[in-house]
Amino acid sequence: MGESETTPGDLRRSGMALQHDREWDYELDRILTAIDDRDAHRVGLQFPEGLKRRGPAVVDDLRARAADDVRFLLSGQPCYGACDLDTFLMQRTDLFVHFGHSPMKQSDKILYVPLFSNVDPFPIMDAARAELAEEPVGLVTTAQHMNHFEAMVEWLEAAGYPVETRRGDERLTYEGQVLGCNYASADIDAEQVLYVGGGKFHPLGLAMEHPDKTVVIADPVNNVVTIADTEQFMKQRYGAVHRAMDAQTWGVIFCTKIGQGRMEEAEEILATNADAYMITMDEVTPDRLINFDVDAFVNTGCPRITTDDGPRFKKPMLTPQEYRIAIGEEPLDALRFDTFHGTW
Amino acid sequence: MGESETTPGDLRRSGMALQHDREWDYELDRILTAIDDRDAHRVGLQFPEGLKRRGPAVVDDLRARAADDVRFLLSGQPCYGACDLDTFLMQRTDLFVHFGHSPMKQSDKILYVPLFSNVDPFPIMDAARAELAEEPVGLVTTAQHMNHFEAMVEWLEAAGYPVETRRGDERLTYEGQVLGCNYASADIDAEQVLYVGGGKFHPLGLAMEHPDKTVVIADPVNNVVTIADTEQFMKQRYGAVHRAMDAQTWGVIFCTKIGQGRMEEAEEILATNADAYMITMDEVTPDRLINFDVDAFVNTGCPRITTDDGPRFKKPMLTPQEYRIAIGEEPLDALRFDTFHGTW
Repeated sequence: MGESETTPGDLRRSGMALQHDREWDYELDRILTAIDDRDAHRVGLQFPEGLKRRGPAVVDDLRARAADDVRFLLSGQPCYGACDLDTFLMQRTDLFVHFGHSPMKQSDKILYVPLFSNVDPFPIMDAARAELAEEPVGLVTTAQHMNHFEAMVEWLEAAGYPVETRRGDERLTYEGQVLGCNYASADIDAEQVLYVGGGKFHPLGLAMEHPDKTVVIADPVNNVVTIADTEQFMKQRYGAVHRAMDAQTWGVIFCTKIGQGRMEEAEEILATNADAYMITMDEVTPDRLINFDVDAFVNTGCPRITTDDGPRFKKPMLTPQEYRIAIGEEPLDALRFDTFHGTW
Repeated sequence: MGESETTPGDLRRSGMALQHDREWDYELDRILTAIDDRDAHRVGLQFPEGLKRRGPAVVDDLRARAADDVRFLLSGQPCYGACDLDTFLMQRTDLFVHFGHSPMKQSDKILYVPLFSNVDPFPIMDAARAELAEEPVGLVTTAQHMNHFEAMVEWLEAAGYPVETRRGDERLTYEGQVLGCNYASADIDAEQVLYVGGGKFHPLGLAMEHPDKTVVIADPVNNVVTIADTEQFMKQRYGAVHRAMDAQTWGVIFCTKIGQGRMEEAEEILATNADAYMITMDEVTPDRLINFDVDAFVNTGCPRITTDDGPRFKKPMLTPQEYRIAIGEEPLDALRFDTFHGTW
């Protein structure tokens, strides 16, 4: 499973680089129908990072079946979720196809192709029973495995577990779905949650958001069962907060990605701190922030940049709540995972 | 002058990291007047890379004199020219101040603060006379030194040189101005051109665009006189073209930055090459292109990414004309520097 590649608490790459080379269904028929229905001449295609390399082959397949005058444009922008649509390309094409994520918000212009996994989850779920207590279990998974969700529920029930599920909030498309920034689907009446899916990115967020629950990871991609352990991760957060307590000047990041903006959070800090400066950007990277000579940053954009990439930044980067702790507005033990709600 | 830091032909950093720490006039009075005139409540500020670190201090100075309810937002997007406005921030603020470049296109919304240099150009111009023949001389400089342009012309004339200048085309704001991508101001009737300004970035472009002219560099920032030598650079271009001659598949990059898009060039390639794929992006970086498994790239965006950063990319990256050479549509000896005209 490549555990040795990352230290505990270092979430980088966890679950982002999967070891199985899976076959995906790009739903070409549905795309071609949408092209016809809309009489589309310019079609934008956006893939998440791990699937961008498939882009040209998908274009080939579409070209072979679409009218000759249909132009396909591949987004070269980084893409890390349904919150991260390439709005430039979307605005300049007749049809915009977003692969690999479920809809965060429906739009006539956008066709979402979620790319469901063909991996069989049941053998690893069976192995995960060794870690489950004989009591109610919450079930969550990612968009990729939603095609099996109902069968997973039935399988668990047949195995004797009462199963608790919920849809979460409007940011989530499906019952039982989790996002890197939203675990409202695990707000259920069970002390243990079974996460079925690849990698540790989602279950670690889940365990941080629900520190009172045991999160059992059944990973059918890497074929491994583990328990999410957030200790190292939480130490990093406390460390970042402590380092930021001496900060005199603050850079307050507003992320301009369509589904990652929390302007009210940013405005609130600006309104009450004369030593805070608002910085707007799409990709929040260490390189870009090096240019801003402040003592610490508050990131109102994607929480996972703050928490997972935090160690890569030269200055402490905090979530909005961690900022309030650092300046003394909230007690240290109030620290919670930063979740993201709403759409745009 | 730090010559040893870069190999000849490697234009990276040349002129981008200047050694004098110059004082700039941020024209605060003009900005404050514009805020009042527009009754602006949200003001966007965009600095080029080298000056971003001054952003918070400029905000401090503006806050001290503006009404309390005026919010200042700093652009954290990379910025490499007047072609590279932060359109997100521009669209969401009442006034958008762009520092460090002259206007490529006027707009009521945008206030351009060019940041003229306070460096005295005349001592180094005097030293440059040793490299000038006693015949007509073309004079060019960058936006930073435009405040001295007329005095430079007079100084050269007083020294006995007939001086040739022109404004170039609509992409350029001033008589005698050059941009990294446009040297139309040197289309003058003189075999020698004197470039007054910092670094080699501009004069190397100038010498590539005008290979028949001698380009004398009078650099008042690094206090050095040199002759622009494009030999290594041209070898790199020929090398890239040769390596791309075997390419079966092509990525055609359309840059989404407001002043760097050439869709017609991109469309033309797509229309005639079934193995070409259009990729749209703002920042064109090696990391982003690694995701696309094609044999070579054609960059229809900023020519300086292609020519100066070319060696950093894993696959050959060509200008549109170099692409036509690589596929046999134009002869190798037709190779010319890719210049960019028009605005947006």
